[in-house]
Amino acid sequence: MAQLSAESAERVIAAARRKAGDLGAPVNIAVLDSGGHLKAFLRMDGAVLGSIELALGKAKTTVLFGLNSEAVFEYCKPGAPAYGLENSNGGLVVFAGGCPLRSAQAELIGAIGVSGGTVPQDGSIAEAGAAALLT
Amino acid sequence: MAQLSAESAERVIAAARRKAGDLGAPVNIAVLDSGGHLKAFLRMDGAVLGSIELALGKAKTTVLFGLNSEAVFEYCKPGAPAYGLENSNGGLVVFAGGCPLRSAQAELIGAIGVSGGTVPQDGSIAEAGAAALLT
Amino acid sequence: MAQLSAESAERVIAAARRKAGDLGAPVNIAVLDSGGHLKAFLRMDGAVLGSIELALGKAKTTVLFGLNSEAVFEYCKPGAPAYGLENSNGGLVVFAGGCPLRSAQAELIGAIGVSGGTVPQDGSIAEAGAAALLT
Amino acid sequence: MAQLSAESAERVIAAARRKAGDLGAPVNIAVLDSGGHLKAFLRMDGAVLGSIELALGKAKTTVLFGLNSEAVFEYCKPGAPAYGLENSNGGLVVFAGGCPLRSAQAELIGAIGVSGGTVPQDGSIAEAGAAALLT
Repeated sequence: MAQLSAESAERVIAAARRKAGDLGAPVNIAVLDSGGHLKAFLRMDGAVLGSIELALGKAKTTVLFGLNSEAVFEYCKPGAPAYGLENSNGGLVVFAGGCPLRSAQAELIGAIGVSGGTVPQDGSIAEAGAAALLT
Repeated sequence: MAQLSAESAERVIAAARRKAGDLGAPVNIAVLDSGGHLKAFLRMDGAVLGSIELALGKAKTTVLFGLNSEAVFEYCKPGAPAYGLENSNGGLVVFAGGCPLRSAQAELIGAIGVSGGTVPQDGSIAEAGAAALLT
Repeated sequence: MAQLSAESAERVIAAARRKAGDLGAPVNIAVLDSGGHLKAFLRMDGAVLGSIELALGKAKTTVLFGLNSEAVFEYCKPGAPAYGLENSNGGLVVFAGGCPLRSAQAELIGAIGVSGGTVPQDGSIAEAGAAALLT
Repeated sequence: MAQLSAESAERVIAAARRKAGDLGAPVNIAVLDSGGHLKAFLRMDGAVLGSIELALGKAKTTVLFGLNSEAVFEYCKPGAPAYGLENSNGGLVVFAGGCPLRSAQAELIGAIGVSGGTVPQDGSIAEAGAAALLT
């Protein structure tokens, strides 16, 4: 299986950071490998402290289920079948900002988690980071 | 960046205490620095024990997000985008009583958290404490 | 039973702070009531962050056992009968800096915990604080 | 007080990584700010997973006490005055690899923590990272 290299993780963070700069949204950016272990992290100047854990949590949620973090919400939102799922695994973060990192063969090799902007901004910044993996 | 001194923290607590006395509401008053670390604390006589953690939690919530504690509720209330945010960072307290402490240059240098009265009382006591920082 | 008032807790902290100033040792000073709940706290400017928890822990250890914190060490030191005692109650701190606060009738009404100087300095600062209770 | 910028944190990581490359020791490198909050992180390819937490823990230990991580060992080693200190603050890491990051005015603005090589390698890699802060 392809592995997430340090060089790739840094490229992902750099792309996310550029997007965040374009949006004027200072964020925390976390990159985890396929085992959910921290590979790289950057807190941009001005990003709030409370979002460090959220960035890490979104990336963890994505790795654990192989889905965007907000897609996990569909399983645990009020009325959905997996009541309380968000409390599993030490706590999930089930709103936008977590995106899978996939190899050219579409293998899940990690995830990016972004937090510090509005929820839609976090989502688009994470997408921009993930898109840079294969460039 | 300006730092929160012990002298300033005590001035904040003294002002909050006077306001609480005026309202007849014995409260717990916590002051944290910009990194979320405890700087000063006072439990007024008669304040309930369960509010110690709430005062600390409101101040922590404020430092982590740079917002009044009740403003964080807007992000995580039912239907809001950040579902479950209140469970992050070891648990947030998202009702009134947490206020930022800002330097003359408007830098976030800490927070005050108040709990023990009604929620509106806690909020106005915290505001009174925060207002004393720059006097 | 006599209760530890906010006014008394502040007098204890003020005395400890004066002693710390005389020694040139910036410290964290915690005062707990007889139930082990936080009553007052002050971090002097320059006190290290890692000592916040130690000051709280020394005071907790003292309240829990009615002894100076370093006296608890005699029960759990290598070869002593209560092996692992220091891991109970969420973790004890068994070196000097925790002193009982006793009423005029010698009732245990709380404790002071001091950390940030050398261990002997912490101990003498805590003693100075405790001595101020009855003045 | 000076603040640790993202740009500075990246320069510190880059220098540590170069040193680790010279030594042939793939390591985890963590950079925390003065409040102990994560600012930047990189796991080099081949660094063991168990060292992620150690790198973070060494940096935390350094920020909390303002000392190299191995200097904290002097306070808690067998026979030293602060028995059990290593169990405080959620667990300290008291061997080499944590170094203070100090501003040009010698203020403690954060710490670097390195783990994954031998202990002496970790220490020299951390020193190399810290030395790059002011360049």
